[in-house]
Amino acid sequence: MELSTIYQPVQADLDRVEDKLRAVSEVDFPHLSELLSYSLKSNGKRVRPILTLLSGKLYDYNPEQLLLMATAVELMHTATLVHDDAIDNSLVRRGRPTVYQLWGEEKAVLLGDYLFAEAGALTATTKNLRVIKLFADTLKTISSGELNQAFNAFNLQQSRPQYFQRISQKTASLFSMATESGAALSQAPEESIQILIEYAHNIGIAFQIVDDVLDFVGTEDELRKPVGSDLAQGTLTLPAMLLLEYYPEDNPVKRFFSNRDETDNIKLAIELIRNSAIIQECYQVASDYYLKACHNLKLLPDNASRQSLIELADYIINRNK
Amino acid sequence: MELSTIYQPVQADLDRVEDKLRAVSEVDFPHLSELLSYSLKSNGKRVRPILTLLSGKLYDYNPEQLLLMATAVELMHTATLVHDDAIDNSLVRRGRPTVYQLWGEEKAVLLGDYLFAEAGALTATTKNLRVIKLFADTLKTISSGELNQAFNAFNLQQSRPQYFQRISQKTASLFSMATESGAALSQAPEESIQILIEYAHNIGIAFQIVDDVLDFVGTEDELRKPVGSDLAQGTLTLPAMLLLEYYPEDNPVKRFFSNRDETDNIKLAIELIRNSAIIQECYQVASDYYLKACHNLKLLPDNASRQSLIELADYIINRNK
Repeated sequence: MELSTIYQPVQADLDRVEDKLRAVSEVDFPHLSELLSYSLKSNGKRVRPILTLLSGKLYDYNPEQLLLMATAVELMHTATLVHDDAIDNSLVRRGRPTVYQLWGEEKAVLLGDYLFAEAGALTATTKNLRVIKLFADTLKTISSGELNQAFNAFNLQQSRPQYFQRISQKTASLFSMATESGAALSQAPEESIQILIEYAHNIGIAFQIVDDVLDFVGTEDELRKPVGSDLAQGTLTLPAMLLLEYYPEDNPVKRFFSNRDETDNIKLAIELIRNSAIIQECYQVASDYYLKACHNLKLLPDNASRQSLIELADYIINRNK
Repeated sequence: MELSTIYQPVQADLDRVEDKLRAVSEVDFPHLSELLSYSLKSNGKRVRPILTLLSGKLYDYNPEQLLLMATAVELMHTATLVHDDAIDNSLVRRGRPTVYQLWGEEKAVLLGDYLFAEAGALTATTKNLRVIKLFADTLKTISSGELNQAFNAFNLQQSRPQYFQRISQKTASLFSMATESGAALSQAPEESIQILIEYAHNIGIAFQIVDDVLDFVGTEDELRKPVGSDLAQGTLTLPAMLLLEYYPEDNPVKRFFSNRDETDNIKLAIELIRNSAIIQECYQVASDYYLKACHNLKLLPDNASRQSLIELADYIINRNK
């Protein structure tokens, strides 16, 4: 199913979120304005603000508050990407040069800080203390997850639980913040908020697993960035972990991690993973999270937003970019 | 006057802020815990949290809220320093290796993000919406100021108003946030809050001018970092601007900015500035801000906190480190 069909019930709201994102770059400092406008240009999937909008619109929602929050969620996501690209020295994302590549590390770090602050300012404008606290706590969780990943770069001794903890922190936490904030702003019953948090946590995990698989099986055209980037940076994702389990004695991941100059091993690892049952096994794991995600959704109000949440979960595990 | 004497009316509270800062590093992730504990170790002057405590204690204050906010203010300050050192590739600060030097850029950026988030979380715990909004807006202002500085590195065409705008954004805004938050949390009358904002703005500017002077006249022992760092990074501060005005035709700043390999010009600029009336002129400007800062303080309640605010302003322009 196409994203545009899934987004249909909240498309008008998403358009207003885009307006608000554009308004963020209208500042009285041309250099900053250019950076903001470039980094916020609509070429992502906008999955996270959609989650906020859909969760809010399951209930009796205040449009202005919900739009502010959806915008804040996307700003926070953008800030993390800008910082990630700076510290990973990534040159291309979504088919375009990164802020890091065009403006350098210093400006990328400072732009990320500004985006975090703007996200926080919009969140504060909702005046909802639960959501404000959630925002700050989520940023703590994401940074911890990223630090966890950084400290474990090129470390072969990582368990699956460590992997799931890390992607829960660095990816799923923002998905959960997106649904929790939307639902909380619409005064959803606490039980329903918890169902939406769990839903988002599970699709967040599935989303990251699929992302980690695509990093091996996607084409550069689909990914709109180099293939095998995770491995190149020493990040051990699920496919690479399975490769280590399949070939415990000798394998290209092991060889590359012990000698980072031998970059040919990245290509070998990609080949090996593509031609094994690893991909299927990863999709099976993602699919389990998809099922967990959808499990309790039937307890939520039966409206177009709920239907979109189900379709979005389905999209996330079947996407190829 | 010694800082310990000035801090005396709030020393017990400052000790509790130190406890709270130590508690921040008690997290269930040893690497992060180590980073936090290192970066928050008490070797700064703690001027900003003191401003929050003094401003709050002018009025009828809630100790728990005030301590949370003072801690948040110091965390935000630390976050900006950690990011600054990362983007400036600074190796030493306050006589110790920086986080950047010991752990590298990636961890420094992520630690800074975590510290911003923790600062935001503590601010949110005050449940005061004005203060929460102020926190986010101040971080926007600081990042803009830092970006402004980054975009103007090695730019000779900068006016004094640009310099004052920049130091107002990157330094004075956090001083103002410190006093405004303290006073607002103590339900100070709006008129008094405005006086405290203005006071902090003016001592913030004076503080930065003195900092910029010390970067030229201090010894490496006093500064606990290399002399001439600002110039080396292409940052045009007030002393260097005056040098350009004093010697418009040819001077070492001009030569260094057009050829960054000729680092001998940094030493020449330091010599020229030390042996001219520039330092005196800078102190005169700082002193004008000091006078502006103290001008309206007499309208505030006459208690030990007010006396400390006056002494602190005096300390700021007379300090040599």
